[in-house]
Amino acid sequence: MRGLVYHGPGRTSWDTVPDPAIEEDTDAIVRVDATTVCGSDLHIRRGDLPEVEPGTVLGHEAVGEVVETGRGVHTRRPGHQVIVSSVSACGHCPPCRDAMYGQCRGGGGWILGQQINGTQAEFVRVPFADSSTHRRPPYLPLDEAVLLAELLPTAYEVGVRNGHVGPGDTVVVVGAGPVGLAAVILARLYSPRRIVAVDLSPSRLASATRMGAHAAELPGRMVADVSEGPGADVVIEAAGDPESFLLATRVVRAGGHIANIGMHGGPATLHLEALWRKNVTISTGQVDTSSTPWLLDLLAYGRLTVFPLVTHRLPLGHMEDAYEVFAHGPETGALKVVLHRELPEPSG
Amino acid sequence: MRGLVYHGPGRTSWDTVPDPAIEEDTDAIVRVDATTVCGSDLHIRRGDLPEVEPGTVLGHEAVGEVVETGRGVHTRRPGHQVIVSSVSACGHCPPCRDAMYGQCRGGGGWILGQQINGTQAEFVRVPFADSSTHRRPPYLPLDEAVLLAELLPTAYEVGVRNGHVGPGDTVVVVGAGPVGLAAVILARLYSPRRIVAVDLSPSRLASATRMGAHAAELPGRMVADVSEGPGADVVIEAAGDPESFLLATRVVRAGGHIANIGMHGGPATLHLEALWRKNVTISTGQVDTSSTPWLLDLLAYGRLTVFPLVTHRLPLGHMEDAYEVFAHGPETGALKVVLHRELPEPSG
Amino acid sequence: MRGLVYHGPGRTSWDTVPDPAIEEDTDAIVRVDATTVCGSDLHIRRGDLPEVEPGTVLGHEAVGEVVETGRGVHTRRPGHQVIVSSVSACGHCPPCRDAMYGQCRGGGGWILGQQINGTQAEFVRVPFADSSTHRRPPYLPLDEAVLLAELLPTAYEVGVRNGHVGPGDTVVVVGAGPVGLAAVILARLYSPRRIVAVDLSPSRLASATRMGAHAAELPGRMVADVSEGPGADVVIEAAGDPESFLLATRVVRAGGHIANIGMHGGPATLHLEALWRKNVTISTGQVDTSSTPWLLDLLAYGRLTVFPLVTHRLPLGHMEDAYEVFAHGPETGALKVVLHRELPEPSG
Amino acid sequence: MRGLVYHGPGRTSWDTVPDPAIEEDTDAIVRVDATTVCGSDLHIRRGDLPEVEPGTVLGHEAVGEVVETGRGVHTRRPGHQVIVSSVSACGHCPPCRDAMYGQCRGGGGWILGQQINGTQAEFVRVPFADSSTHRRPPYLPLDEAVLLAELLPTAYEVGVRNGHVGPGDTVVVVGAGPVGLAAVILARLYSPRRIVAVDLSPSRLASATRMGAHAAELPGRMVADVSEGPGADVVIEAAGDPESFLLATRVVRAGGHIANIGMHGGPATLHLEALWRKNVTISTGQVDTSSTPWLLDLLAYGRLTVFPLVTHRLPLGHMEDAYEVFAHGPETGALKVVLHRELPEPSG
Repeated sequence: MRGLVYHGPGRTSWDTVPDPAIEEDTDAIVRVDATTVCGSDLHIRRGDLPEVEPGTVLGHEAVGEVVETGRGVHTRRPGHQVIVSSVSACGHCPPCRDAMYGQCRGGGGWILGQQINGTQAEFVRVPFADSSTHRRPPYLPLDEAVLLAELLPTAYEVGVRNGHVGPGDTVVVVGAGPVGLAAVILARLYSPRRIVAVDLSPSRLASATRMGAHAAELPGRMVADVSEGPGADVVIEAAGDPESFLLATRVVRAGGHIANIGMHGGPATLHLEALWRKNVTISTGQVDTSSTPWLLDLLAYGRLTVFPLVTHRLPLGHMEDAYEVFAHGPETGALKVVLHRELPEPSG
Repeated sequence: MRGLVYHGPGRTSWDTVPDPAIEEDTDAIVRVDATTVCGSDLHIRRGDLPEVEPGTVLGHEAVGEVVETGRGVHTRRPGHQVIVSSVSACGHCPPCRDAMYGQCRGGGGWILGQQINGTQAEFVRVPFADSSTHRRPPYLPLDEAVLLAELLPTAYEVGVRNGHVGPGDTVVVVGAGPVGLAAVILARLYSPRRIVAVDLSPSRLASATRMGAHAAELPGRMVADVSEGPGADVVIEAAGDPESFLLATRVVRAGGHIANIGMHGGPATLHLEALWRKNVTISTGQVDTSSTPWLLDLLAYGRLTVFPLVTHRLPLGHMEDAYEVFAHGPETGALKVVLHRELPEPSG
Repeated sequence: MRGLVYHGPGRTSWDTVPDPAIEEDTDAIVRVDATTVCGSDLHIRRGDLPEVEPGTVLGHEAVGEVVETGRGVHTRRPGHQVIVSSVSACGHCPPCRDAMYGQCRGGGGWILGQQINGTQAEFVRVPFADSSTHRRPPYLPLDEAVLLAELLPTAYEVGVRNGHVGPGDTVVVVGAGPVGLAAVILARLYSPRRIVAVDLSPSRLASATRMGAHAAELPGRMVADVSEGPGADVVIEAAGDPESFLLATRVVRAGGHIANIGMHGGPATLHLEALWRKNVTISTGQVDTSSTPWLLDLLAYGRLTVFPLVTHRLPLGHMEDAYEVFAHGPETGALKVVLHRELPEPSG
Repeated sequence: MRGLVYHGPGRTSWDTVPDPAIEEDTDAIVRVDATTVCGSDLHIRRGDLPEVEPGTVLGHEAVGEVVETGRGVHTRRPGHQVIVSSVSACGHCPPCRDAMYGQCRGGGGWILGQQINGTQAEFVRVPFADSSTHRRPPYLPLDEAVLLAELLPTAYEVGVRNGHVGPGDTVVVVGAGPVGLAAVILARLYSPRRIVAVDLSPSRLASATRMGAHAAELPGRMVADVSEGPGADVVIEAAGDPESFLLATRVVRAGGHIANIGMHGGPATLHLEALWRKNVTISTGQVDTSSTPWLLDLLAYGRLTVFPLVTHRLPLGHMEDAYEVFAHGPETGALKVVLHRELPEPSG
């Protein structure tokens, strides 16, 4: 089959590689009908995660059809359409029993496209298939389903839920890339007073307004604006750099919450001399995807509008183009790029 | 009357100053029967809080008798024995309505011995007396009652409660001074598996063991010890320096809590490159003293043993000696020093 | 002045009574600009609350202007426009310190129009005015402000919050009178999957649909409908009779919540033989009005649309007509009837 | 093999029955080294659960050795010593994903000894063995381990946790049988002010005092005693009859919790005319056994003393004697009766 192979820092190519096969009896083999590129894939390609070995097929988000299952798989069968979660879950270890699948100690966690071959390929081996996939209802478009593999659960669990967003809140989202914008959409479920999206990119600020942010501002202006009042009830950090984190700690109100979603490559400065008496909470977290069934229902019931998060569609073989388009999103306004096995009719 | 006056960085003296008088009709004047010295008093005396103006009487913890009340005071009368809370609460502003008295926006908060004259004197003016004092039951010794003014509520609210200590937890307390030791005592209410106290001072480690810590260790050994397992469920930072905070972030388990009690004078480094995926929460906070009535009941019902936190008793006029004894606690093992208007018979 | 006086079961009249005067220095006298009739007023008029003594002026909801304050009132002055909360709060007793004002042990609680003279009059004495009133912003119409005195906080605190309504939930509201409909409006803040309103009155079912219920049904049909799935996540009982409560226990799913708002006059049967293994929670409660400032902000920010809850406006002197209109709401579709000192231009 | 077979209301016998065999590949066969009798077994034997068909082997609590596993079992192997949980969990359905195993919709839940053959036999087939058993550490005695199969998780999850027991609370436990006494032991982890155990049996009241209840009283005396103050913060109903439940609703304070553990055979009267304004919560629940790993750790760390709950030991073949001894516990003081495959030396 064909797949996107990592060859060391800065180098990937769409290669012919061996077809995946069942290795453990809890595995399933899934034919990839749609996949996408994540910010962490850009990090990996740059070489920021040295634990990823050359030769690895990248990617950890997919929707597709089960084509084979190990004999220890009980709830999935060939022919099932499934969402492949970015987090694999053994289902039996203590963290899994607490629904903290991202911290799985039984061989799972976020391993796809990192410790084992991933989803940016024609087929993927999915470990612990019973616990690591979700049935896709037939009426849920591929473009929306693939967002359930990681993006939407991350924005919800690590951003909105950890941040305790509630009705009447002032919510600041720092970083208006796909995960920040998904946080804007999900925060709206709780009727906040206003959501202020902050970014350096004018095109992303424009996207934020389209997604329902009540204001979209450059960092400097936002600080002045929010600081007129007591500050933000909730700040969601979705950029992953030290300056964004610093900004978050500046605009949060006494008693407020900072929910860090961003994937950081280095330390930040925490001004405890100002924060020690402010009664704030700061949370970090990797997604567990425990909220996927609930998000799937919200999509099914029409309570979420997420299709604007997908701005580009490409055939699966154009994976390297997808990386380029996605990497230039801050300039071009591109958000999620979805790659399809069978490209649907061009939709704009 | 006599009181301890701040004269600028490093300089205090026990001076004759004007008696306090009712200024607002919600004030009470309290005769100080017992007071004590807090770590923050040492900071103020050193000049670390430049907002404290020379001429201010220091101190924010006291127990005593009400001698006069403004006409707007409804639940306290002359003759009442009261605990003077370190936090004054207007009782009507939004934070006070949410029991976040430390963030009072109606003129209260932690102002005693900082923005207004404090408790290290023969008399003190207490603003918002209805909301800022608690009746002392006659059987509660002065030495224990004065710990309710700030120490015990701080250790509970900012440490044990914010840290979500529960049965079976591994709790690490970094810093075995009075507030850290109070956190040890209060954490035991929740039957943790083990409490590890960490300090550089051998005498404080010995105190920690006496207070019920299951282990008391130097920082280096503790990291190795706790790191053998998944890490600490809860880390309570009660030292207030960057290295302690760093240690806290190193020993916390994925999914665990760091509760910062320490009063920091500068920034710390937050290693988000390691923490972003660990699902930790970090909380900061100034005490609200909302838990004082509950702690008072626990003392009354015999559910807390706190008297070992008081190691020295002095007459009120020996205030400067008290600062010296307290400041050298890490070397001498001194913990809280209580100053009494009428010194009881020497008790050892 | 004139006010509605209770003369024993079934008998009230709009009488001349003495003007209220300051009795405690925490009192305020408020000129009533708008008031309304509550379901509990109907109970009182019928004689269901024998503790209400003949001679009492009824009513516990009002908006008006402060005309006099005792010297112990600090944050309200003559000329202030205020919402008079149905719950008076001493602000200092243990329940008040926990924001459980409805359980005040310092002389407050729900006493207006029940233990002391109430708001259905030209003037009213409001005890503990600092804690028992809220400033009305000038742009908030009287008709909406008066709903903050009790109706909206009740529907939120006792219904939506106690019931833990969340995104994606199936919510059943039993009883589509004013408080049930307010619960429909407030539940929508949390993006439930669907809200099913249940009532015997076709006109109230029509109102429920207008307020945003996704379905409005007769009891029998609802049970069948909801029971096809796992049952309701949340049931809000807003009718106050044994059959409604029984219905609530039938349609709740395993693990779900029943939030009782209804004011009951007798016992209900609790089928523990079916419920003991269903992991349900049942909550009861009287409003605390602790959420009033938050609801006031939501109205101010345009996050709530409540004006359709007011169907009739009458001059203050037509109080007995108001009782009649309100009592026949199930037949006529009348919801809240607001009585105005100065009747605005007829608005339909 | 031999096992206790139900033959219809009132009739059981220790019969020779076919050995259990693997039916699904997630099954394990466990040799029963210790089992016990539960209050629900008495109900079943009396015929109170008509869904239990004649011919069923009873019992749902056991500790033993795995002797065979289906090929879909991944974490248990022959030779493993395991605790067999009373609740079988498929591990994949929505309730199981939320750790609500007792509500499993994938074929599990409480089925052992009720819908399928149970543990009061020489061998038992355990469905979903990965999720429905826990490894027994070698140092944990059989007598304590068997309490983890149901008794301790029930007392904790349905009683102490649902009841929100906290430091300083007044806790009333109605019914001092084994589960009520286990609730006494577990409530003590949270340092309540006092635990009052209530029962009609003097011998059970004596047991309660030995287990650490601060008071043990007949119902009438308790009501008077607790009612002097504001009432109980938490009431744990562990008797399962209408009068006990009624008592619980009478002694709970405003704002308090009633946690129902009792298995009820009929309805109770809920005095909503008194409770509607008291802000109480009432919870019901069947155990999920989600807390078993945590309780296992508490036992391992020496934080729980549970051996006094076991008063009698019998050889496995004396099952019918065990029922008799257990059924007469209220008169004789017998609590849990543990049946052993290899009876240890008589221990009193």
